[in-house]
Amino acid sequence: MSMDLPEPPPDLLVERVVRNALAEDLGDAGDITTDATIARDATAMVRIAARKPGRIAGLVAARMAFRLLDPDIRIAIVVPDGRDAEAGGTIAALDGRVRPILTGERVALNFLGHLSGIATLTAQYVAAVAGTKARITCTRKTTPGLRALEKYAVRCGGGVNHRFGLYDALLIKDNHVAAAGGIIPAIERARAHAGHMVRIEVEVDRLAQLEEALSVRADTIMLDNMSLADMREAVRITAGRARLEASGGVSLSTVRAIAETGVDLISVGALTHSAPNLDVALDY
Amino acid sequence: MSMDLPEPPPDLLVERVVRNALAEDLGDAGDITTDATIARDATAMVRIAARKPGRIAGLVAARMAFRLLDPDIRIAIVVPDGRDAEAGGTIAALDGRVRPILTGERVALNFLGHLSGIATLTAQYVAAVAGTKARITCTRKTTPGLRALEKYAVRCGGGVNHRFGLYDALLIKDNHVAAAGGIIPAIERARAHAGHMVRIEVEVDRLAQLEEALSVRADTIMLDNMSLADMREAVRITAGRARLEASGGVSLSTVRAIAETGVDLISVGALTHSAPNLDVALDY
Amino acid sequence: MSMDLPEPPPDLLVERVVRNALAEDLGDAGDITTDATIARDATAMVRIAARKPGRIAGLVAARMAFRLLDPDIRIAIVVPDGRDAEAGGTIAALDGRVRPILTGERVALNFLGHLSGIATLTAQYVAAVAGTKARITCTRKTTPGLRALEKYAVRCGGGVNHRFGLYDALLIKDNHVAAAGGIIPAIERARAHAGHMVRIEVEVDRLAQLEEALSVRADTIMLDNMSLADMREAVRITAGRARLEASGGVSLSTVRAIAETGVDLISVGALTHSAPNLDVALDY
Amino acid sequence: MSMDLPEPPPDLLVERVVRNALAEDLGDAGDITTDATIARDATAMVRIAARKPGRIAGLVAARMAFRLLDPDIRIAIVVPDGRDAEAGGTIAALDGRVRPILTGERVALNFLGHLSGIATLTAQYVAAVAGTKARITCTRKTTPGLRALEKYAVRCGGGVNHRFGLYDALLIKDNHVAAAGGIIPAIERARAHAGHMVRIEVEVDRLAQLEEALSVRADTIMLDNMSLADMREAVRITAGRARLEASGGVSLSTVRAIAETGVDLISVGALTHSAPNLDVALDY
Amino acid sequence: MSMDLPEPPPDLLVERVVRNALAEDLGDAGDITTDATIARDATAMVRIAARKPGRIAGLVAARMAFRLLDPDIRIAIVVPDGRDAEAGGTIAALDGRVRPILTGERVALNFLGHLSGIATLTAQYVAAVAGTKARITCTRKTTPGLRALEKYAVRCGGGVNHRFGLYDALLIKDNHVAAAGGIIPAIERARAHAGHMVRIEVEVDRLAQLEEALSVRADTIMLDNMSLADMREAVRITAGRARLEASGGVSLSTVRAIAETGVDLISVGALTHSAPNLDVALDY
Amino acid sequence: MSMDLPEPPPDLLVERVVRNALAEDLGDAGDITTDATIARDATAMVRIAARKPGRIAGLVAARMAFRLLDPDIRIAIVVPDGRDAEAGGTIAALDGRVRPILTGERVALNFLGHLSGIATLTAQYVAAVAGTKARITCTRKTTPGLRALEKYAVRCGGGVNHRFGLYDALLIKDNHVAAAGGIIPAIERARAHAGHMVRIEVEVDRLAQLEEALSVRADTIMLDNMSLADMREAVRITAGRARLEASGGVSLSTVRAIAETGVDLISVGALTHSAPNLDVALDY
Repeated sequence: MSMDLPEPPPDLLVERVVRNALAEDLGDAGDITTDATIARDATAMVRIAARKPGRIAGLVAARMAFRLLDPDIRIAIVVPDGRDAEAGGTIAALDGRVRPILTGERVALNFLGHLSGIATLTAQYVAAVAGTKARITCTRKTTPGLRALEKYAVRCGGGVNHRFGLYDALLIKDNHVAAAGGIIPAIERARAHAGHMVRIEVEVDRLAQLEEALSVRADTIMLDNMSLADMREAVRITAGRARLEASGGVSLSTVRAIAETGVDLISVGALTHSAPNLDVALDY
Repeated sequence: MSMDLPEPPPDLLVERVVRNALAEDLGDAGDITTDATIARDATAMVRIAARKPGRIAGLVAARMAFRLLDPDIRIAIVVPDGRDAEAGGTIAALDGRVRPILTGERVALNFLGHLSGIATLTAQYVAAVAGTKARITCTRKTTPGLRALEKYAVRCGGGVNHRFGLYDALLIKDNHVAAAGGIIPAIERARAHAGHMVRIEVEVDRLAQLEEALSVRADTIMLDNMSLADMREAVRITAGRARLEASGGVSLSTVRAIAETGVDLISVGALTHSAPNLDVALDY
Repeated sequence: MSMDLPEPPPDLLVERVVRNALAEDLGDAGDITTDATIARDATAMVRIAARKPGRIAGLVAARMAFRLLDPDIRIAIVVPDGRDAEAGGTIAALDGRVRPILTGERVALNFLGHLSGIATLTAQYVAAVAGTKARITCTRKTTPGLRALEKYAVRCGGGVNHRFGLYDALLIKDNHVAAAGGIIPAIERARAHAGHMVRIEVEVDRLAQLEEALSVRADTIMLDNMSLADMREAVRITAGRARLEASGGVSLSTVRAIAETGVDLISVGALTHSAPNLDVALDY
Repeated sequence: MSMDLPEPPPDLLVERVVRNALAEDLGDAGDITTDATIARDATAMVRIAARKPGRIAGLVAARMAFRLLDPDIRIAIVVPDGRDAEAGGTIAALDGRVRPILTGERVALNFLGHLSGIATLTAQYVAAVAGTKARITCTRKTTPGLRALEKYAVRCGGGVNHRFGLYDALLIKDNHVAAAGGIIPAIERARAHAGHMVRIEVEVDRLAQLEEALSVRADTIMLDNMSLADMREAVRITAGRARLEASGGVSLSTVRAIAETGVDLISVGALTHSAPNLDVALDY
Repeated sequence: MSMDLPEPPPDLLVERVVRNALAEDLGDAGDITTDATIARDATAMVRIAARKPGRIAGLVAARMAFRLLDPDIRIAIVVPDGRDAEAGGTIAALDGRVRPILTGERVALNFLGHLSGIATLTAQYVAAVAGTKARITCTRKTTPGLRALEKYAVRCGGGVNHRFGLYDALLIKDNHVAAAGGIIPAIERARAHAGHMVRIEVEVDRLAQLEEALSVRADTIMLDNMSLADMREAVRITAGRARLEASGGVSLSTVRAIAETGVDLISVGALTHSAPNLDVALDY
Repeated sequence: MSMDLPEPPPDLLVERVVRNALAEDLGDAGDITTDATIARDATAMVRIAARKPGRIAGLVAARMAFRLLDPDIRIAIVVPDGRDAEAGGTIAALDGRVRPILTGERVALNFLGHLSGIATLTAQYVAAVAGTKARITCTRKTTPGLRALEKYAVRCGGGVNHRFGLYDALLIKDNHVAAAGGIIPAIERARAHAGHMVRIEVEVDRLAQLEEALSVRADTIMLDNMSLADMREAVRITAGRARLEASGGVSLSTVRAIAETGVDLISVGALTHSAPNLDVALDY
């Protein structure tokens, strides 16, 4: 608790995802290069290193990849998920048979590079809003099959998670509003329909809608593509009666100004759909 | 055949991956927002549009998402996988019940945006080397679980595929060479070990190693992080006896010069690990 | 929307669960009795009937069982999920080949009887509190593997759903409180840890704890095994600042009095762990 | 062997079912309450206790739940499956990290309470017929996905198992008889069709049919909803030439009289479809 | 019913097995040869033909392979499972797109050739014992993953099925007898342990054991590697009180003499573990 | 490396296949014979022995079967996969609890007998061509679901593997040639379509086609059902410019003469589709 690192997804889930990734890479024939060229009993100590500085996420999956191939590989983690690695710095050290290390290298690094890329980009957004009350949050624009791990990477980057899927919260968007005949009937239907443990958020794109949403006590209100002036006004009107989430057109160059309007949350789809890989490698 | 669009992965595979993605988004409770606010029998015609110009890939998965939710949705594809969409242009039109369209929207767009992002970046690399003999190829640095679709996206972008996994070709890297005691014994072991339908590639980082690799007739030789001068010299020495693949430090600003050295292939990890999403949306 | 019947779990989920149940009953050899005694092309019209009156739930699974065995069976639903059947009344009519009807009968009825049993018991609790503001809610005491369907059966009975699992809401129980050092630090940790779309409930067993929970604005407060007098006092103290959920020792004979204390919710584990089957049968 | 406790289903099957149940409860995000409030390294000794007296079944699944979450939890079983627990008595003691204990608690107890409920009800029926030759047996009216475990719970209660599915024995019911043109042709077809290791049972609802069934040597004959007088007469006529199974309208108040007619078996659907949960809890 | 062809395993099972086989052959990249050389819309009529005469089994799986690849392929079955094909004779005709036909060809023929091989060998054994009362039966010596289909192939060949697995009948072998302290205690334990719908067979290797087995009324007695004289004597002693199964050292040259001893069943492991493929092909 | 035994498929794949086979044999009820007759804590030392001499393959799967049932069984391998066992010779010794040994026996032996049968037949072909340059190779005529293990068995027999599936190499057959308009356009299309790491083989049935194939530099050319004279001529014409593979009508009596024509490879479908089981047993 003291270090307060984020919790990874359940081990059983991580195992399932990593097992799938190993199957994808190994196919029916396995690592035919390593089998042909490396002695069965050769051992080595190697390290996973960052080529560029960044926030680490995904060691939990990388470690699982090696463990599934050979439970006897010893893995010492130097920079845990949620901490920063320097360029050239060691992230983890491995000691064991060479064959499973070489065989698992690419799958392990694919997880680590992808998730650390997300964590690093998130950390940049979080740093950009430092000192404001705004928190950076992700969206459902995730890579199919990897959502739980990508949400975790966002937490490793200091961000907070939005809903995990269609199932765990209501987010009433413009189409839902239109179909329901307005903000108020949409939220009322939602409240009648949803269990008491489910939060309701509604998307508004102008201040008039905001007033409607507040009148029926939405938990969170998404300000969709509003101007900075309108966002400031929304914060003033809301006066703490609901959480306000800014959404749309957020970039590293605009996020600070958005945060300074006083919104509670800023959601950034790019965190999970466009973060470049963090360059990590296995050094022998 | 006439249009020569690339072939997608097997339908049975696409179905499995998309089914998994839908399960991830729907959870146990399903789309509680749509269920609360949209009438069961409401129908609509909507279109999938590109917000930015780009090369399309992934309609095969997007279409599968809607089909699995409701086989009665009619889907007309306007810009097929492998063709370019303009900013604002319609990619596909959907006609059917609103509920499954809204429910499937995010999963469909996540596939389409991610894979079109890869295809678009690939197309930029392919354009950059136009007129040279060099082909752009991908690596195994793919997103876990999506390799078959990402390899397809590379083909949609005009690139060619490298091996699919550890199982379908030998790629002898520096660690394998070191363990085997040199380039020549490594390739000889590989040849003795591999089936006759499996190609062998070897990584070299200096010209002396190239000569060794040629002496034992490697199918493909990867020139790892060589200077342009060394690559030119490698092309001269090789004289068509093997395919040459440039690897390492490739970017859109360097790829043309690399192509002009005369290499056959240029591999770019970023195609699959760092392509930003193509911005696509569903317009109602 | 007009009839306002509850939404079943996603079709893809229902299919997976029913496929599993059919595999369990069919094994490797299939329905050897029917194969031996019924002509391949024999057809019949049959009806699913209730032997006892009750609230129907699970036709969505029963229908899926027959569809997976033979998509050509015609199924007309007379009493849909969420409506009441009379003793002897027809719930659905089937018309098609006899073999798949006989083969699927038991699996279909097992779903229908089990889930209608839950819906019927829920409806009894809901009726018992009619006229009060209290809603009847379920717990996580569900049958392993059937939670989504059982939660749906509770909705068919007029109840509302509590959280679906450990993942979609926080419910801070006595052990968590003890470990965190009290109600207030527990809720504060929870709030710091959870995403903004996740509700927080805390269990209290005496009024002093209630005040603490209110002081840090818990969304819902569970009054665990409190006396009626204490519950009334809790309602008075809370004055609408949080939802109050009564829990523990609830039975059909006590639920009305509990509801009349003014609590918002009454959770009943027995709905899903101890509801007797509704007696349903296939009549030929 | 000396204690003669029943054998549980294969470990590989139990693991699959429990893994599924854990996935259902943990979702993508896991136990967010425990992760927020309990220190990673906190340990505790806890006990699983019965709140009411009953016959225990399902520790095999409960133990698997904890093992899958953390193989280092030590579990000492005090009252094994198939033995009686007293109210308040300890069933098992656990010693290990608090987090996986809290996370696995509900899944473990859901299995244990459900299966012990079945075993307890079975034991009541078995006690009710003590001293007669009648054995209590279950049916295929089981909870979808849990049949193997529920059949095991029946054995833990002292009952015996009927066929496991459609695949492992023939049970010729009235519809099969009607389609085949009578009891005798139905059994003859069944015998011609079935392998020699498969038993044949036929359902009769009057004594004339019993004679027919005996004439073609059915292994077991189900007396469906017969009066006590007819059952006594059936026993006299049969004179040991076939096993007789009483079925229909069996309750704890009628079972003794049925047993005293001299039938060999009494099948009770309620054992698996309507047994109330046994109240078990984890005490910290 | 009139044609009395054997029933295949459940469709849901066949689909699962065939889907697995297609995934094995298609991998991630699919049929790259066909995709490269055959036009997308080319169609053809082709036929599946037998190169050698034999008993057909497995069309149910072959057809499923084509259906899973393209539900629009029309398939007309000329010689159904369980009937004999002549050398050169057409077994089935296909009409549809060329690509899925070529892609599915090998998987379809692998099922058809393998299972028809089993059916053909079985039919030879059945023919060899024609006129005796002996029936030919299979064992559990089947190919892992294909047991249900192989048992079906045995039925297509005119044989009967032994138990399907360890779960659906008791077969007490020498090790079980030794551990239990003799034939009689072994059978008594088995009877006490097994449900009433489960048959019990015991293996004996000398006539003294046979008497013991008869004394406790075993359903079936396996005469393991007995001489013809002993088998004749066993038949005489048994006098119809139990089924007798000859086992061990059975070949096409010995089976007739064994049948003429009067045994009821002759089990032949080779049916499923050593039947050569039937040569079938797709003619364009 | 020194012993140069072939590499088995990935452990994760072997585990999946064996787990499936155990589920098939154990069903829901498990090994009811062993559970009834063998004491829970009985232990024994047993050996797996060959009844006939042969080349061993499949211990990797047999060992996995026992490990999955009981990780505490000690298994000592005497004749590893890829080595020859004598008749009566011990292949492996097991020491552990009797129950899991008896329960796993049949699954383990089914793998071992089937795969050793393939290895033994392969070794006979390999021996028949000793001293020539020809290597024996398998085809895609494998048992559905077991391809990776059967390809491994071929390697254990001294053979080499052809492509693993439709996905990892192009094999242009007569239908592809016809559709593409000739050998040359077919290969050109294939080359344009395939990645650079994928080999291309083409089937020819007369010498004129051979010249065409050589003119566009096919990697491997399959001589389909050619006469010995034509094969000799093909070898002369080719003069090392491509690998030549003889195919069709190969048997143990013809293979030597085929090898002496000078071809590089001889493919034999019978290796995997018609190899009789090697007789292996568990001796107690």
